[in-house]
Parts: sequence; structure tokens; C-alpha cells
Amino acid sequence: MKYELYYWPEIQGRGEFVRLVLEDADCDYVDVAREPGGGTRLAAVLSGDRGGVLPFALPVLYAGTTVIAQTAAITSFLGERHGLAPGTEAGRLAALTIALTIADLVAETHDTHHPIAVDKRYELQQAAAKERSAVFRRARMPKFLGYLERNLERNGEVLVGSTISYVDLAAFQVIEGLSYAFPRAMARVRGHIPKLLALRDRVVQRPRLLHYLTSPRRLAFNEQDIFRHYEELDG
Amino acid sequence: MKYELYYWPEIQGRGEFVRLVLEDADCDYVDVAREPGGGTRLAAVLSGDRGGVLPFALPVLYAGTTVIAQTAAITSFLGERHGLAPGTEAGRLAALTIALTIADLVAETHDTHHPIAVDKRYELQQAAAKERSAVFRRARMPKFLGYLERNLERNGEVLVGSTISYVDLAAFQVIEGLSYAFPRAMARVRGHIPKLLALRDRVVQRPRLLHYLTSPRRLAFNEQDIFRHYEELDG
Repeated sequence: MKYELYYWPEIQGRGEFVRLVLEDADCDYVDVAREPGGGTRLAAVLSGDRGGVLPFALPVLYAGTTVIAQTAAITSFLGERHGLAPGTEAGRLAALTIALTIADLVAETHDTHHPIAVDKRYELQQAAAKERSAVFRRARMPKFLGYLERNLERNGEVLVGSTISYVDLAAFQVIEGLSYAFPRAMARVRGHIPKLLALRDRVVQRPRLLHYLTSPRRLAFNEQDIFRHYEELDG
Repeated sequence: MKYELYYWPEIQGRGEFVRLVLEDADCDYVDVAREPGGGTRLAAVLSGDRGGVLPFALPVLYAGTTVIAQTAAITSFLGERHGLAPGTEAGRLAALTIALTIADLVAETHDTHHPIAVDKRYELQQAAAKERSAVFRRARMPKFLGYLERNLERNGEVLVGSTISYVDLAAFQVIEGLSYAFPRAMARVRGHIPKLLALRDRVVQRPRLLHYLTSPRRLAFNEQDIFRHYEELDG
């Protein structure tokens, strides 16, 4: 069975958390919107033509007739199926707990450049974006990253269980994204998150992931994405 | 085994989504922070003294030594254990998908009164709150509620599966919360969500839930909570 991933074809976005699991687990999948005619199929899924639960937004994953939306739900499903999640119930729940906390960090990162209206351009809400970004750099980003660091201090080399899981891949992705979007703010945080940075370095050396990350399939960060670099928001 | 719920004792908040499942499923549980000495125990859980995965925020549930944070993770766990979730894998994933979308709606509701800084008072960010609330009333709230309505049109009398699940309890709670916070905006939406309102009316008549909702254990909505009523934010 070939998984079908539906996500915007021009950005990493939330879809990238799913792509990283699919690639690291060597799953057979198609990134539908990047195929010929994919835009039409993506629109059909969003409008619910395929049946099953209606997605509110992308990413959406089809596993046969099973449909899943919401990044953490998709990645926990894939992780548990493909050896990228703890084997115990307590471990799986710990993984989901951290994955959902990372999803909150991603949502807050998005809101640094869209604090008022998701459907209006950044430039139209720039003053509020500067205010929200200052709070994000001062309080929220350090708090979330410190949270991940403390879980590593408690658990060991990985965030949950004893081997790399989908949660560690997600942690890698937020480090990459935040380093792109807020290089100056991240430079000030780095000294406080040595275990998290070491985890990032181990993740990036995983052969299949490294192969993906250096392939044309890995899109570049850009200013249509969740992680955006705007000088004026980086303090 | 008695479940231990850790949540702020003065508000419904995100903890209420957990309380509704615990009450409707007739679980044996203690709402720790509302017991004598509960504040100290709550602080200990937040600081990680109890071991296991560290919670970023409340609510937190202990089931024996298993610890879970994040509302949707807790309610899906309880729902699956206590007959308030679909029995099939596809159904469980559909339930989690919708539960996480409701969690997003709750987060966006929170940000109507705290669009800039979660750690500063509403009054210090009131201008941005008015702007964000206008977008929420015009676009976001109708979109989220319309999404739930369309899932009911597709699935039947309940959001997933064939009987009431934890997702329907969550839908009930957001209807209650939004009706409290945005009565005028909700009055304009009601005509478009007949199935969702009918679901709300069925949920509230469930005997154990009704017993809870009319007990002193059900706290009143208030302006320290996520769902807050401010005249000036309701258009």
C-alpha cells in the first residue's frame, strides 16, 4: 500500500514533519500535490470528495481508505506503524504529549508573523507581529526549547523511549526552522540546550534522512512558510 | 485505580474537556488541585517531581504511573478506555483528527483576548485583541463550527462512529464556551449549524453529564478562563 500525502507543494510547513517520518522510515508514498494533476486531487481531498472524516486543513494522509489530518495524529500513526515510536503504551502517550507540545510551538511560531489575521498578509499586521515576536523570543521560544532540553535530561539521548522516534524528528525540524527564522534569538538560546542540539546533530546523520535532506525533494525554507526570516522580527 | 487530574482549580479551561469525559464515563478520579493540599501536589507535577514525561502545561492526567499531558491526548486515551471512542482504527484516528481541530479552535479562542503575550493582562493588549476578535468572529469561528457541522452532515447524529464519543463532548463544551464568550456572534452563526446544536442538546441530556453540569463541581465560566466574555470583543 502506498501512502498518499496531501500538502502544499511549495513549502515545508507542517507537511514536513510528515515527510521526515515517511522518508526516515523508508515508506512507499506519493507527495500528491507535487505530481502532475496533484493540485486538483488536493482540492478534492480538502472539499471532502474522498469520503471519511473531513480535514480542516493540510496535511492529510491517506493510508488506503483511512484518512488522518493534524500533524501530530499523522506522525504518531506512522511512527507507531514503522518503528519510530516507543513500544509501550506509556511511551506512546509520552511521545504524543511531546509531539503535541511541539505542534503548539509551531503554531506560536506561525503567529509571530500572523498575530491578527491568518488570511491577511504579514505586511498588514507588522506592528503586532513585532510585539508578538518580542514576546516569543524573550519568553515562549526559550520556554519550549527548555522544555525539550529538560525531557532529554530526564530520558537520555532521545526524547522518549530508548531509540529515535518521530518526536525526535519533529524536534530536529523545529530547531532547523527556528534557526532559519530567528538566527539571532537562537544564538542566545544555544548555550542552554546542548542536549537538544546534540540530538539534532544525530538526527541529521541518519542515512535515509540525510539522503532526503540533500535531495531536491527537501524544499528550502521561504517566506510563504511557517518558519519565516524577517530581520525586523529577530530583535 | 483512581485517575488523578491536575488542573487549575478556579476555571473550566482545557481541564474541563477532561472532566467531561471522566464524569460521563463514571471514572473514579480526583481533581487534585481542588483537594486540601492540592496546590502543592500540582506544583510538584508541573516541576516534574513525579517522574515520567515532563508536562509543558496543564491539564495532566496520571493513570497509575502513566502520565499524559495535552488535552486531546488525555481525552482520546480516556475515551478509548471507557467506551467513548470508535472501536475501529480508522474511527479512532478520525476522532483524534477532529479532537485536535477542536483544540486548535480553543487555542484561537484564547488568543482573541491574548493576541500578543500570554503572560500579560488582557487590558494591556486590548487594541490587538479587538482586531483579532473581529477576524475570529468573521472568519475563524464560523469556519471551525461549519467544519464540525459538515462532519455531522457526513457522519450522522454524532461526529465520528455511531455513538457519542469524547469528540462530541468536546464539541458540546466549545458550543457552551463560545455562547458564553461571544453571544452576539454566536447568534449570527446558529442558523448555519443546526446539527451541531442538536448534538449539543443531546449531550447535555446524558444523565451522568447532566448530573455533573448541575453540581457544584461544574465551575462557572469567568474572565480568568479561556472562554471570556468581554462586550467589546463581541462586535
